[in-house]
Amino acid sequence: MAKHNVTNPSGFLEFSPLQERVRQEWIRVITEVFEKNGFPRIDTPLVERAENFVAKDGNPKEIYILDRLLRDEAIDQDKDQRAIRFDHTVPMALYVARHFNDISFPFRRSVIGPVMRGERAQKGRFRQFDQCDIDVIGSEHLSLLNDAQMPAIIIEIFEKLLPGQDFVVRINNRKILTGFFRELDVTPEQFKDVLHIVDDLEKHGEAKVTAELKAFGMSDKNIEKLFQFVEVKGSDEEILQLLEELTGNEVFREGVAELRETREALESMAIHPKRIQIDLSIARGLDYYTGTVYETNLLNKDGTKNTSLGSICSGGRYDDLASIFTNKKLPGVGISIGLTRLLWQLFDAKILEPKRATSTQVLILTMDESATKTALETGARLRKKGLSVENYFEKKKIQKQFAYADKLGIPYCLVLGENEVSNGTITIKDMVNGTQETVKNDEKLVSLLK
Amino acid sequence: MAKHNVTNPSGFLEFSPLQERVRQEWIRVITEVFEKNGFPRIDTPLVERAENFVAKDGNPKEIYILDRLLRDEAIDQDKDQRAIRFDHTVPMALYVARHFNDISFPFRRSVIGPVMRGERAQKGRFRQFDQCDIDVIGSEHLSLLNDAQMPAIIIEIFEKLLPGQDFVVRINNRKILTGFFRELDVTPEQFKDVLHIVDDLEKHGEAKVTAELKAFGMSDKNIEKLFQFVEVKGSDEEILQLLEELTGNEVFREGVAELRETREALESMAIHPKRIQIDLSIARGLDYYTGTVYETNLLNKDGTKNTSLGSICSGGRYDDLASIFTNKKLPGVGISIGLTRLLWQLFDAKILEPKRATSTQVLILTMDESATKTALETGARLRKKGLSVENYFEKKKIQKQFAYADKLGIPYCLVLGENEVSNGTITIKDMVNGTQETVKNDEKLVSLLK
Repeated sequence: MAKHNVTNPSGFLEFSPLQERVRQEWIRVITEVFEKNGFPRIDTPLVERAENFVAKDGNPKEIYILDRLLRDEAIDQDKDQRAIRFDHTVPMALYVARHFNDISFPFRRSVIGPVMRGERAQKGRFRQFDQCDIDVIGSEHLSLLNDAQMPAIIIEIFEKLLPGQDFVVRINNRKILTGFFRELDVTPEQFKDVLHIVDDLEKHGEAKVTAELKAFGMSDKNIEKLFQFVEVKGSDEEILQLLEELTGNEVFREGVAELRETREALESMAIHPKRIQIDLSIARGLDYYTGTVYETNLLNKDGTKNTSLGSICSGGRYDDLASIFTNKKLPGVGISIGLTRLLWQLFDAKILEPKRATSTQVLILTMDESATKTALETGARLRKKGLSVENYFEKKKIQKQFAYADKLGIPYCLVLGENEVSNGTITIKDMVNGTQETVKNDEKLVSLLK
Repeated sequence: MAKHNVTNPSGFLEFSPLQERVRQEWIRVITEVFEKNGFPRIDTPLVERAENFVAKDGNPKEIYILDRLLRDEAIDQDKDQRAIRFDHTVPMALYVARHFNDISFPFRRSVIGPVMRGERAQKGRFRQFDQCDIDVIGSEHLSLLNDAQMPAIIIEIFEKLLPGQDFVVRINNRKILTGFFRELDVTPEQFKDVLHIVDDLEKHGEAKVTAELKAFGMSDKNIEKLFQFVEVKGSDEEILQLLEELTGNEVFREGVAELRETREALESMAIHPKRIQIDLSIARGLDYYTGTVYETNLLNKDGTKNTSLGSICSGGRYDDLASIFTNKKLPGVGISIGLTRLLWQLFDAKILEPKRATSTQVLILTMDESATKTALETGARLRKKGLSVENYFEKKKIQKQFAYADKLGIPYCLVLGENEVSNGTITIKDMVNGTQETVKNDEKLVSLLK
């Protein structure tokens, strides 16, 4: 009919069937790795009181609130506005406040799910997108070993999701930068702005950043010092030793000590050294990070950073984020994967090229109705053995049935006809290489697919 | 502080940490069974154009639309309203229309996720709730074998989720009722209302339904016939034979033939007969069902239906639901589990009593800092072996560490101290029965937990 406009509203991305299969598989793997590392998934409601989002610096132009298509004053007696979450961090802080007596500290949780931001629509930016977060929140204190666990988890995830793709988790400690800035006569009030400018070094280049720092009032000499500092090269151990030789102020020395402790703990976790790299230039745009910070980059074949993708997983340590809704000191450390944007970028750059639109491993085809009963029995039996099995139920020519398997990317077909029914055999067709063989039992198929 | 109201807005249920663990586990199992049966999970965006929801009989008072906390006319140039989905069915119909050339028919998909309805707040009813749906949509035709697959999937799911709990999937065919009503001089215009009244037989009782049917203009004789009919008892085969002996009209005979075909296909799927029951009284409230219909009930110890819970999984065949946004004939059949409400009821009735707040299987404790390195190594090694392992990183007395494991319901602790480090052993404490043993390698632990 097409009298309706059925397209997705702008900013609300719907993946193709092939792409959605990848998204589901990624969510499954990310959930599994998070939970294997002691971060149970806790998905909170999408909706909170709007006042609590404003309290946490949400941009009111981008915060979506709920209204009714037809207002009914009788239903909503409570006049507070309801808003959709724009990240998982404020809901986590609310969750901790609500369940303070139910939860155990250090409180670990993962969350995977949509958040919404009503940004201006543009390519590769979405108004609904999935964020995958983990955080651990301590009561009063939180061991630095938690900071070391985060890169280990990032590495486990991306080794599973992107096998054969090189990547590196870059780590730094904000206290090192803060301490160093202080030596450069950057006042505490200026820290934030200078951090933001430095954070853009990679994106904007040295010339532009120099101009910005000058405009900010930094001397040529201090700008040079700053660049020398954030571009220190060497092995992680060399960088740490170099930092330890500098006579910095207390904050600086604290940052260096924390960075060493974090780096050494990673050693004990059997992390391959090529996956980790200390990088003094990382500041992270967000103001709430106070200690360790992380960024993760894919590497090109020549070992350089893939700069077009930006950081694929970031995070850090914060001192007071979770405590806004309580009167407790609740330091935390966490990481976040912006799943929707990342997948969109990987599809767009053809780094991921999905081939399957279904979870089905085996499609059971029938030559004619005489095989229906056997087909049903076979499907039930194979599912009990743990395989993902679909029966093709419609009365179509066998070539149509194969075409269906082919279009969905199903790897194996079982063909059941008169011979198979009377001999109690099954014929397996490998849809990738086109070979076919008739076997006596399910063992072969199970071994191919398990 | 407590200057903020941190409570969840009315109707937006947040489970406790213990309950949320069950919810996550249920979603994992339901996804797995759906996908094993050839229904890949496809989660579409939460937001669609409001006009498309109104087109499908959504109640505009209950449909939530998006606004911005602070309006910005510059951002939204497209003035169409955006609404949050109130079910998964309309989004599926839109998906089929959008991806018509990308998808293969019969199109199978599962979806699990939140929907929102702004209903009046009341106990056990929620404004955001998870629905778990599967549907299969044919192009022009759809084999009845699909109708048989639905109860098989319901049974597989609840045998996994509620082991030891008896339940029954009741099935019927709307054509049988429709044909029978016609014989009772119920006009086609009245079908819908009479079906609704009959559908409430279980809930309202015979006296109330009799009164309603009388008010509707049915004669005492026809009401008696109707009751006799919907209360036919016997084995499924006896009921089918009895129906086949009746000389009904064409619609009636078609319904009986479809019910037999569906029931016999279930036989071939090796379903235990106690799990299935033909029940001629089921009509399903929704008007769009046209053939097979399902309801699922838990059974009490004495074999009677648990009526306080209502149907825990329902669905049926529909002829034209998916076709509203296309000019194609797209018959379908599907089922739905109202997960949030069901879990809330099962917790409330103490049918489910959750004991664990985490996915962690093993917590690694350290007696003092000398064991930290070994603890990190042990955690990494056990995770590689597939276990869910958490390290307790904070410097607390060992009793505090055990208390943490206990509160979260973690089944095993590994204690590492001076002895373990120097001997290369691990000490396993079983947190349920309190026993403890020191072993040479990981085999014992892996065998306990895999």
